Amino acid sequence: MITEKKFKTVAIIGGGLIGSSLAHSIRENHLCDNLKIFDSKADVRKKLKEIFNSQEIYENLNETVTEADLVFLCVPVGSMRDVAKRISNLLKKGCILTDTGSTKNSVIKDIQPFIKEDVWFIPSHPLAGTENSGPGAGFPELFKGKYWVVVPYCSIPDEILECFKNFLSGTGAIIETMKPEYHDKILAITSHLPHLIAYTIVGTATDLEDQTKHDVVRFSATGFRDFTRIASSDPIMWRDVFLNNKDAVLEMLQRFSEDLTYLQRAIRWSESDKLVDLFTKTREIRRSIIEEGQDQ
Amino acid sequence: MITEKKFKTVAIIGGGLIGSSLAHSIRENHLCDNLKIFDSKADVRKKLKEIFNSQEIYENLNETVTEADLVFLCVPVGSMRDVAKRISNLLKKGCILTDTGSTKNSVIKDIQPFIKEDVWFIPSHPLAGTENSGPGAGFPELFKGKYWVVVPYCSIPDEILECFKNFLSGTGAIIETMKPEYHDKILAITSHLPHLIAYTIVGTATDLEDQTKHDVVRFSATGFRDFTRIASSDPIMWRDVFLNNKDAVLEMLQRFSEDLTYLQRAIRWSESDKLVDLFTKTREIRRSIIEEGQDQ
Repeated sequence: MITEKKFKTVAIIGGGLIGSSLAHSIRENHLCDNLKIFDSKADVRKKLKEIFNSQEIYENLNETVTEADLVFLCVPVGSMRDVAKRISNLLKKGCILTDTGSTKNSVIKDIQPFIKEDVWFIPSHPLAGTENSGPGAGFPELFKGKYWVVVPYCSIPDEILECFKNFLSGTGAIIETMKPEYHDKILAITSHLPHLIAYTIVGTATDLEDQTKHDVVRFSATGFRDFTRIASSDPIMWRDVFLNNKDAVLEMLQRFSEDLTYLQRAIRWSESDKLVDLFTKTREIRRSIIEEGQDQ
Repeated sequence: MITEKKFKTVAIIGGGLIGSSLAHSIRENHLCDNLKIFDSKADVRKKLKEIFNSQEIYENLNETVTEADLVFLCVPVGSMRDVAKRISNLLKKGCILTDTGSTKNSVIKDIQPFIKEDVWFIPSHPLAGTENSGPGAGFPELFKGKYWVVVPYCSIPDEILECFKNFLSGTGAIIETMKPEYHDKILAITSHLPHLIAYTIVGTATDLEDQTKHDVVRFSATGFRDFTRIASSDPIMWRDVFLNNKDAVLEMLQRFSEDLTYLQRAIRWSESDKLVDLFTKTREIRRSIIEEGQDQ
């Protein structure tokens, strides 16, 4: 059934930015023979039919997954449990099930109870995305050169795991393996906290009086603009992320708040050395990112 | 002496990112006959001599400003007072003096006591910059299509003001007039607070244990990277900005902290509606920025 980098039938549940980009990439890189894309929303299916082959778009979960050798759950992490429950009895023997959720502990907790013995559940997370959402935002190169984290939290036979990783690397992604707790911690500081802060500062600006708000928009190029881009990401997806990585996010937020208070105090008391020390230290991190080639 | 868009002799004090970009732009757009660039640091002057005509680079303030019709102070806002004091008696009658500092109330307070009756002091601030600093980072198009805020805090004859604005527009900048208090407030939210927050979160990450820090760098593309770019800006310049726009920055920081605490509490108690409400509202601001054409 399973051949190098290629699966016979692949099913994608959820046709948003990640699901549709994955579909584009699978088609462009010929990673399977039959592609089936499911979405529960009629307007999303309509849009998907315009973009892809209309025979590939399904509104029935049963028809989507029963023959699939590999199933991707590309839904907000808050919906994982419900979808896993609904497909639990439909998955065929030997099938690999994965998800693309931004939190891993919560997804494992939600999906694991519905995994039958003859199905291989391998959680994963492509570290790729844009501030745009929906099927129209997808494009085939989204995963190219980006990390795709694989989180085999329980024992998976080597050949199954290799097959799955090979398939993912067919999208152009770089495959990394990680423990769920570590994934959630790293993502809390690199992704979840930055999004939370961006949402907050843009929110603070929206509460200013009208003329000021208007000028904030006009003069946004001075730093604020980068935050608005991040803060225009999909609301439901991000609500679910924060609620499902609560512990790690709250811990990082606590550290951040302490550091911000320290800086606030330094400004109030004109402690200029403390400011320069920090501002010099942060330049180093940027330098490391440029050296790692992660600045593009 | 003064002709449309052109001055005979222009002096630039400070050859960093802004000063050197301005020099490039003045030369490329033929905005004066004689250009004189001063920097107090020998290494900066050495670099400037490699980039520009070496006769244009001065280490003596007297020689730089005595014949100038227009003088730009492109030094960190914390150094404005000192420079103003030193050039006060050197400026020629009818000369226009301006600065490019990121705070305006403090600069006016610092410079104003040294302005003689026959000199026109018109504070200004180009809303342009990059995370890079120093003379090598300058380029002629830095101001093109960007706002350059002019802050005529006291009475200036119309023809002098028009002449100055015309000159600035020769760099390709869009000229805006604003009161100093309003400028400082708008910049506090669009620029100073975003920089402060970026410095903080990158600082929080640098305090993590080594392996985690290394992985934060590797997986920075998921949101964190944008913050590291902002947090690699010039430390001295930014120390001065925070200390010289203290009131507005602390006020905006207070609002931000309240909003962040509200969100933190919403996450802790899983109040998902509060999260979705905010995340939906912030999308609107992004939409306004795209409509204003400020997203590039």
